[in-house]
Amino acid sequence: MNASQGGISAQQLRNFIEKIERLEQDKAELTEVIREVFGEAKSEGFDVKVMRQLIKIRRMKKDELVEQEELLGLYRQALGD
Amino acid sequence: MNASQGGISAQQLRNFIEKIERLEQDKAELTEVIREVFGEAKSEGFDVKVMRQLIKIRRMKKDELVEQEELLGLYRQALGD
Repeated sequence: MNASQGGISAQQLRNFIEKIERLEQDKAELTEVIREVFGEAKSEGFDVKVMRQLIKIRRMKKDELVEQEELLGLYRQALGD
Repeated sequence: MNASQGGISAQQLRNFIEKIERLEQDKAELTEVIREVFGEAKSEGFDVKVMRQLIKIRRMKKDELVEQEELLGLYRQALGD
């Protein structure tokens, strides 16, 4: 009997919840490390706001590139090229 | 000469940016894994919305506990207890 049938396995639920909480904890730690790296860059004289903008632009460019490559693949497939 | 003095070390900047991008990538992967775990829970019949609420409540309770313990420590210190 699974949870959708009205039965709930407490152990199964606990496993899922605790697994997610551990992953969320790992994410929070990464966020903290990122903050530290920005702090380090700042102490070296770099402007954090500009760095964040730069990272955003680079991500957009990368996403666009990936999208264009996917489209290209699709178009080539369509034409059998 | 550091970046605040008008000089910019391209290599230093690249190191910071690439380090942050790697960490952001790790974070994105964790987000994906979390999504997968929720998906797995859902396929076992658990309600994802309710699970998210549960995780939120547990986090709040934990944060409150930590805060109270910190305050308790402060008060004990103040009274030399």
